[in-house]
Amino acid sequence: MAKAKKIHVTVWNEGRHEKTNKKVAKIYPKGMHAVIAQALNRQKDIEARTATLDEPKHGLTDSVLRNTNVLIWWGHMAHHEVDDEIVEKIKARVYEGMGLICLHSAHMSKIFTRLMGTICMLKWREAGEREILWVTKPGHPIVEGIDDHFILPKTEMYGEHFDIPEPDEQIFISSFEGGEVFRSGCTWQRGNGRIFYFRPGHETYPIYYDKNVQLVITNGVRWAAPAYGRPHAYGHREVGWIEKRARKTRK
Amino acid sequence: MAKAKKIHVTVWNEGRHEKTNKKVAKIYPKGMHAVIAQALNRQKDIEARTATLDEPKHGLTDSVLRNTNVLIWWGHMAHHEVDDEIVEKIKARVYEGMGLICLHSAHMSKIFTRLMGTICMLKWREAGEREILWVTKPGHPIVEGIDDHFILPKTEMYGEHFDIPEPDEQIFISSFEGGEVFRSGCTWQRGNGRIFYFRPGHETYPIYYDKNVQLVITNGVRWAAPAYGRPHAYGHREVGWIEKRARKTRK
Amino acid sequence: MAKAKKIHVTVWNEGRHEKTNKKVAKIYPKGMHAVIAQALNRQKDIEARTATLDEPKHGLTDSVLRNTNVLIWWGHMAHHEVDDEIVEKIKARVYEGMGLICLHSAHMSKIFTRLMGTICMLKWREAGEREILWVTKPGHPIVEGIDDHFILPKTEMYGEHFDIPEPDEQIFISSFEGGEVFRSGCTWQRGNGRIFYFRPGHETYPIYYDKNVQLVITNGVRWAAPAYGRPHAYGHREVGWIEKRARKTRK
Amino acid sequence: MAKAKKIHVTVWNEGRHEKTNKKVAKIYPKGMHAVIAQALNRQKDIEARTATLDEPKHGLTDSVLRNTNVLIWWGHMAHHEVDDEIVEKIKARVYEGMGLICLHSAHMSKIFTRLMGTICMLKWREAGEREILWVTKPGHPIVEGIDDHFILPKTEMYGEHFDIPEPDEQIFISSFEGGEVFRSGCTWQRGNGRIFYFRPGHETYPIYYDKNVQLVITNGVRWAAPAYGRPHAYGHREVGWIEKRARKTRK
Repeated sequence: MAKAKKIHVTVWNEGRHEKTNKKVAKIYPKGMHAVIAQALNRQKDIEARTATLDEPKHGLTDSVLRNTNVLIWWGHMAHHEVDDEIVEKIKARVYEGMGLICLHSAHMSKIFTRLMGTICMLKWREAGEREILWVTKPGHPIVEGIDDHFILPKTEMYGEHFDIPEPDEQIFISSFEGGEVFRSGCTWQRGNGRIFYFRPGHETYPIYYDKNVQLVITNGVRWAAPAYGRPHAYGHREVGWIEKRARKTRK
Repeated sequence: MAKAKKIHVTVWNEGRHEKTNKKVAKIYPKGMHAVIAQALNRQKDIEARTATLDEPKHGLTDSVLRNTNVLIWWGHMAHHEVDDEIVEKIKARVYEGMGLICLHSAHMSKIFTRLMGTICMLKWREAGEREILWVTKPGHPIVEGIDDHFILPKTEMYGEHFDIPEPDEQIFISSFEGGEVFRSGCTWQRGNGRIFYFRPGHETYPIYYDKNVQLVITNGVRWAAPAYGRPHAYGHREVGWIEKRARKTRK
Repeated sequence: MAKAKKIHVTVWNEGRHEKTNKKVAKIYPKGMHAVIAQALNRQKDIEARTATLDEPKHGLTDSVLRNTNVLIWWGHMAHHEVDDEIVEKIKARVYEGMGLICLHSAHMSKIFTRLMGTICMLKWREAGEREILWVTKPGHPIVEGIDDHFILPKTEMYGEHFDIPEPDEQIFISSFEGGEVFRSGCTWQRGNGRIFYFRPGHETYPIYYDKNVQLVITNGVRWAAPAYGRPHAYGHREVGWIEKRARKTRK
Repeated sequence: MAKAKKIHVTVWNEGRHEKTNKKVAKIYPKGMHAVIAQALNRQKDIEARTATLDEPKHGLTDSVLRNTNVLIWWGHMAHHEVDDEIVEKIKARVYEGMGLICLHSAHMSKIFTRLMGTICMLKWREAGEREILWVTKPGHPIVEGIDDHFILPKTEMYGEHFDIPEPDEQIFISSFEGGEVFRSGCTWQRGNGRIFYFRPGHETYPIYYDKNVQLVITNGVRWAAPAYGRPHAYGHREVGWIEKRARKTRK
């Protein structure tokens, strides 16, 4: 069966809030990426490393990308600093089949908006409100082990309308103390690549230590991991190529 | 342009709560169907009549169904009393192109569950809670004239998971005071027929007098009304029928 | 990881053509179900048994259904003989998470049409035409190991319009020698259950001996197998149940 | 009712093949855009003008875009010459609600690929083959007046896999003489804007004189025309804004 080998995950983080905001630094002394990678590395079938904006090529060299099965993305204050050339390389890898998980404020990242084709805007408020995430696709691999809902006691609010293309699958919908709702877990496919947007993760709350959040991300990694390679098959075809190939195959 | 003629709507109501519950009778002395039909009949392009469970054939004779462009359905305590034969006739009319709008507890009606193919269950609670309905598909004809949200001050709660097939279009998502969320406006197509599920409408609150609710139902009627007739084209086709028809068309 | 245990498959076949038509009996002396089950049993992770219409309870006792992870269905001339009570039991199992693969003329079976909510009609012709099945969802687990297309040299034609709900995923589209097209591989979810419709399989051609057809069915079984169990969570919820449960969980 | 006013259409054409290829110039002496605009202007509810690549700002000034309800796009050999700034302005107008119809080789245009978020590649062959376009969404406004299929006697072949996001609605699927199939009519929504991709239109065949093609484009214009304006509602919201607004509305 497929997926026997380890799933290679790269957890990418902008990593700026952790350097500039003491509150964030206290919660995530080594950055949010470190906490996420650590949680993933507890799984036998996953091997996670990290990469950040301020490394050369944002830590995403051709070799790193080629060897990444699933890329996790967290960005917020420096979306515009991400190099266009690297964004295009990530996009190309998604089309080949690399999974992509975009967390929280990554809804406005270059890679997410370019894959969606929309502006991906929303309403927001930082007021430490309770979020309840409701499962709207029970039976989906991403919610394995999750009850019919789970709670984040304090978080930033994101509210509808969330300007995304109609999701392929609607996994979670959240309610917030203030009365807003948000499609907080959604999937799409682009090329061969599976994309999972998962809302939780504001930097000033210890969201990525939450057991349910870690479980969903872990499930998301397994769901987004490419099952198998597939060669591209586009471009010109001559008259009779189907019959010619069929004859070859029969021999 | 199509839709020049009036849209013929039949507002169907079980009509039992109004007879057996004084509170409901006080809010809707002539039944919920009367209030909905009255609101629709204020529109120049719509002509609405009503039908109820306790009329012969539930008020849905072959002639009524044939002359109905959009059927609105409200049922709750007597789903099981609706005659199977009539349900099958309604289904056949939906397949031909008749629009269907299912309101509130009609999520468990025979006609809705048979068109969905799922059990359509949910969580619920009657506690007079505030519901906020958020628009998740701005630009859709069903939300024309509706702001980014609207509020129902007191209503029954419906909560996820709502066991429906993935909607073709997600129009509204609601939050409730207790923290639950619900996909409160959804559309699907079955055969040629357009189906709109719209949650508001608990019988013990004056929901169908609400201006926003009336506007959404009115928009829903226009959206669900069949644009044009179309003959069926299924069954056996002989070898060469495409070429034969093409030759005839050319002459 | 999930799916470690064997996937228990029941291959159900009406089994009538094989008894009444010498041509069919020659191709499938033990029935189409036997050939399909044999192919599946070559896989280490799958254990397939068979069941047919003329067995008591059509071979689908409560115990068999409870122990079936994926049910494969082939029917044609005797759809109406399938007991309604058993159809409802199958439906209930799909909602719980049992996978369902409907083959060829099963598009008109009771179980398929009830889960779809449409009439599922199409055009057809028996003229031994070539069918080319084109992959429209590369990267999907169901097409693992399949090239960008494969050919069935002689088969019955099915043509659009195929009256189904918009599929969740479009996996294959076929062309036929006569010029028709058909959505020949489609998926939907109903409740927790995954459903895969796969067109190939006319009884007078040796379709189920084809290596590609066997591979797709095998992949389909793995895709449709439920990843995990999930308790139902519908019905009444009292005021404050979310907070109450949260307090319990924290202890 | 909405849509009472005329729908303002801009038919955009690269316009290069007509200048450089005698065969194309003979079929379309004034360009493909002229033929399409002429067909649309025969409708009382539509007012069509044209714009081409070699005009200043490609004929798409801010004023033209602001006054365009539906933009039709044809491009092929000069996709890369289309100014990025203008592409971004078109995208912004689509998000506001402007309809977009992309024809034939526009599948590789900047505007289409950026709205889709995929590479939109396919197989192709110029061999004057017959295409049959099958209706897969009967009852949809775009196929009003169209039979269950129509034929283009000679055209370029486009074959699957077509690398697009799963369409919101599948309207047409084509078969070609060589055996390929193609999803030749698809819709998506991005922001408030409706997008229709329609395959017919190779420049060396008189496709845009075909009555069925003209009818589908006309229907497409009416379907894609924005029903109404809608203000944006994104960004920061303070605590209690919902209640505050509700109080204002009640007064």
